[in-house]
Amino acid sequence: MKQITKYVIKNSLKRMFLYRASLTRLKLMGISRVFSYTIAYETGVTSDQVRKDFAEFDIKGNRRGGYKIESLLASMEEIFHRKKEHNLVLIGMGNLGQALSKYSKFVQRNMNIVATFDIDPFKQKIRSDIPVYSMNRLEEIVSRFRVKLAILAVPEISAQEVTDELIRYGIKGIVNFAPVLIKVPPDIVVNNVNLSDELESVLYYVHNVNKAEGLQNIEL
Amino acid sequence: MKQITKYVIKNSLKRMFLYRASLTRLKLMGISRVFSYTIAYETGVTSDQVRKDFAEFDIKGNRRGGYKIESLLASMEEIFHRKKEHNLVLIGMGNLGQALSKYSKFVQRNMNIVATFDIDPFKQKIRSDIPVYSMNRLEEIVSRFRVKLAILAVPEISAQEVTDELIRYGIKGIVNFAPVLIKVPPDIVVNNVNLSDELESVLYYVHNVNKAEGLQNIEL
Repeated sequence: MKQITKYVIKNSLKRMFLYRASLTRLKLMGISRVFSYTIAYETGVTSDQVRKDFAEFDIKGNRRGGYKIESLLASMEEIFHRKKEHNLVLIGMGNLGQALSKYSKFVQRNMNIVATFDIDPFKQKIRSDIPVYSMNRLEEIVSRFRVKLAILAVPEISAQEVTDELIRYGIKGIVNFAPVLIKVPPDIVVNNVNLSDELESVLYYVHNVNKAEGLQNIEL
Repeated sequence: MKQITKYVIKNSLKRMFLYRASLTRLKLMGISRVFSYTIAYETGVTSDQVRKDFAEFDIKGNRRGGYKIESLLASMEEIFHRKKEHNLVLIGMGNLGQALSKYSKFVQRNMNIVATFDIDPFKQKIRSDIPVYSMNRLEEIVSRFRVKLAILAVPEISAQEVTDELIRYGIKGIVNFAPVLIKVPPDIVVNNVNLSDELESVLYYVHNVNKAEGLQNIEL
């Protein structure tokens, strides 16, 4: 039973990432307490929205005294399971795959790529801090490191085949950089990151900026 | 007057990209006509949603005879300004910048990176099909090639400074890969692509898959 999982990240979750980014910045500036309107002001949303989002994710604050930045960030670490280390595999060591395998921000957020894979024997000779294996070691590595998350950076043509294999070995979540829709069972989470679409959506808004749909601004 | 442009891509626009992907696939399979329910079925949304989205983007179809795939794709090319070539610059030739500069899908969609830039003189010696310049040639290149769109792949620390420079030279849209919120005037479009957030959002859903919020499935 194959399905297309149409996976759309909730806007509230995206805003949580924005809030976290701005709180991290405020903390670096030596600030220890904020009000919802401070966060709103910094991220370009309304205070009501901030409070509503916090309620959705069970984040409590004292509306009079504001929020402690430290404990807000701690709650967010909890929500995003950042205290735990997460092992990942990366499939496809083309240009994009290689860049992703070296992306230091993943490690900073406790996401460790334990191994990368490619069908091309030449790619398996790439000098890298992370080993590059042939696909026939995928099952062993996924099982040994209890990997639940995979980054897919293979060509369109092999995306579905590799996806099927990943799921067979126990992968539960896939970040798919291949510009193609992959089919997965309903309990598997797929996030499609299509880089061309990201560019084209900016082009669209640049050409339609007067409509300003989907754009929200606040003055600082 | 500096502002944070909180830019969120409309869900209808994201769905248009999904529809286009599935229509391209159907066309390759030799199919020439579709109904809204075919597209709905392929992309995991309802037929009503497809028709509503098409109406929003002024795409007309004959509900009895269905849509001609050829003309649907032509309408989408029009909407996304794909007939025209778009010149881009890319700033920051670290691992990610280098991978993006080689990403062939951009060219396939008429988006040409005319030049890349880096402050590091060593990066300027990278062998590449696209020239790597020092930052002091940015103004000249942006003006000569009438560039409106920039890809930002610089470290967090220099993201704002480079952004200010880009805007001064006439850039109207930025795809920002630096994991930091940049401030821009209200007429500038920013799309923040935070790769760590993309991974963490999958982690979040993998841990909360039973809630299945934000997840929609259809059986195929």
